[in-house]
Amino acid sequence: MKVPITELQERVTNLQERLQNQGMEGALLVQRADTLYYTGTAQNVHVYIPKAGKPLVLAFRDFVRAQQESSWEVIQLKGVSKIPSHIRDAGLPSPERLGLELDVLPVNQFERYRKTFPEALLVDVSSEVRLQRAVKSEWELARLEESAQILASVLEFAKAVVHPGMTEVELEGLAEGKARALGHEGYVRMRGFDSEFHFSVISAGARAAVSSCFDGPVTGQGISIAHPHGATMAQIRSGEPIVVDLVTVVHGYQIDQTRILSLGPLSEELTKAYELTRQIEEKIRAALIPGKVAGEIYEEILTWVRENTPYEKNFMGYGAGQVRFVGHGVGLELDELPTISKGSQEVLRPGMVVAIEPKFVFPGVGVVGIEDTMVVEAEMGARYLSVSPRELAVL
Amino acid sequence: MKVPITELQERVTNLQERLQNQGMEGALLVQRADTLYYTGTAQNVHVYIPKAGKPLVLAFRDFVRAQQESSWEVIQLKGVSKIPSHIRDAGLPSPERLGLELDVLPVNQFERYRKTFPEALLVDVSSEVRLQRAVKSEWELARLEESAQILASVLEFAKAVVHPGMTEVELEGLAEGKARALGHEGYVRMRGFDSEFHFSVISAGARAAVSSCFDGPVTGQGISIAHPHGATMAQIRSGEPIVVDLVTVVHGYQIDQTRILSLGPLSEELTKAYELTRQIEEKIRAALIPGKVAGEIYEEILTWVRENTPYEKNFMGYGAGQVRFVGHGVGLELDELPTISKGSQEVLRPGMVVAIEPKFVFPGVGVVGIEDTMVVEAEMGARYLSVSPRELAVL
Repeated sequence: MKVPITELQERVTNLQERLQNQGMEGALLVQRADTLYYTGTAQNVHVYIPKAGKPLVLAFRDFVRAQQESSWEVIQLKGVSKIPSHIRDAGLPSPERLGLELDVLPVNQFERYRKTFPEALLVDVSSEVRLQRAVKSEWELARLEESAQILASVLEFAKAVVHPGMTEVELEGLAEGKARALGHEGYVRMRGFDSEFHFSVISAGARAAVSSCFDGPVTGQGISIAHPHGATMAQIRSGEPIVVDLVTVVHGYQIDQTRILSLGPLSEELTKAYELTRQIEEKIRAALIPGKVAGEIYEEILTWVRENTPYEKNFMGYGAGQVRFVGHGVGLELDELPTISKGSQEVLRPGMVVAIEPKFVFPGVGVVGIEDTMVVEAEMGARYLSVSPRELAVL
Repeated sequence: MKVPITELQERVTNLQERLQNQGMEGALLVQRADTLYYTGTAQNVHVYIPKAGKPLVLAFRDFVRAQQESSWEVIQLKGVSKIPSHIRDAGLPSPERLGLELDVLPVNQFERYRKTFPEALLVDVSSEVRLQRAVKSEWELARLEESAQILASVLEFAKAVVHPGMTEVELEGLAEGKARALGHEGYVRMRGFDSEFHFSVISAGARAAVSSCFDGPVTGQGISIAHPHGATMAQIRSGEPIVVDLVTVVHGYQIDQTRILSLGPLSEELTKAYELTRQIEEKIRAALIPGKVAGEIYEEILTWVRENTPYEKNFMGYGAGQVRFVGHGVGLELDELPTISKGSQEVLRPGMVVAIEPKFVFPGVGVVGIEDTMVVEAEMGARYLSVSPRELAVL
């Protein structure tokens, strides 16, 4: 499925307004998620978006596929040094202020652009791109809904196959195999430097309560020191909460969802704590209203947890493992804007998609919590995109 | 399993010699594969390696796990701005020339280091790190051998389950599930900007002969435009070559291996072409001798293919999809040094590990070829680390 030209045109026009507001003549984008967003192809392309007029889609590899996949005209690029002449050939002015993705662009690659555009002031355009991409179109929401369907099927499959004595990685492997067979695209894109995520965190009992380099409330321990988060080779036992945090990708769009399974009942305390996280999720969902400031929602929720639960210390991690957010944007990348986080000044807008993940971490015992991807819509609060049942799954 | 302190000490000492040769007072490393290599932990750490003395391992998250996982002493880091005071507290001089990983470090992050070290000249140390890491120790080779065992088991499993009408992603999903259950760590690290690889390329018939943004001779088409390489949702049929290119990871160390399966016999031409790639692989293996220049081996092989086969045009891709290498370094990352590539000046040394992958691409028909990971040892040529049988697997 190609991204329709009308969709691409709207995306480009929106960025052009931003470029004009920021006084840039154009933006030269090269990072995969960004170029996919504006061009509709994930081949190796540069896209030059002038402040007015058509974008220049310049393809290295694979040029032929980029032509087939993008709804724009695509030009073959023989080298970074040729970009200025492509800009001239298109009748566009040489940029004096040129936007680049300075949040992700490696220094050595940046230096090549500096040599290529010696007269231009190279400025960071990544905030504009990320703020724009935070708001999803109807077309994007339809892809997210497809992804949510796959994720729900995978979760039902996981419930059907999990049994005592199965290792966490076995369950993960089966679930991922199912996801792939259903059309999950595999690689989970993240924007942050050195951020790594492989399909899931499946983690049971006390192992789930261990934090790691991964910037999330629940990360698992991982198989080895070299990959220190996610599932382990330890066995799942009855009576412990099994965190099943999955990401599925359809046409690049990611749904992030967590459910708790258990083989036999959980303790009364964990069961009650789980119900609290459902309540907190509903509170966040209801608070996700256009015009609200993300950081204020975060503070409201923290206050509510402090005043209404005995688990302030366990919320969103424990001790040094505590994270300062309750939700994060998700779309073509797992770490999009807005973040519902401490101090965030981002103002919510209709179409923003966030994964909300209230979780309680009990060291030595386990984790309960929930996570759903939802879209900000109107004054009634956000709408769930995730479709899995939200009850604790006691099997 | 922790990386032994003797192993870490040798790695640091080796880099220190390089820093001295390059006139640097120290290197500040932050990229995951590099910090894992020098510190033994994959938590979020910075490591400052002075030209002499002990390294400073400074951990953000997770500090406690970094302490448990590294054989070095680990100090908690509260912010990048604190790094200079940690260097002073250790009695080390403030660096005048400081090495950073400029090949991977994003510009905005680099700017924070520039503010933190306003007096220092910040230079690229990545070539030194990559050249050092190209040569593997006995300890690293042992991990690669463990990874090769898992990969061989996964391949036998794939042979057992593949059948006509199975989709490529189904086969991939099952194979990956098996790999995870056996201890494959999941995420495949690559150094190159925007390089993405998800476990495998499983691609059958003509679909395997389509190139993509991925810099390899055989990449597959992928499920969608958004992830345009790897397995597809199309069915595998009898009589077509099935490319099974897998990467497994143990303690961070990657084995890269390709075999061709087929359900029923392949055509005589493809069968003969496959045997040619085995012959080419043996020629490359025999040529991987300490002291030889990588680019010269590449030219020798290209000449041999031109003079002894009718498939020069099909070698390592077809048309614009042709790549200019026959092998690449592999270890903690899939795109390590040396590359056996056009113009490469890298001199082979004992302990270098490369994945050698001669492949013939026939548009509209399919791909045959082979790939094995091997280690440069002595004048007899490289030693295979991959252990799967190298015969065409007609099932």
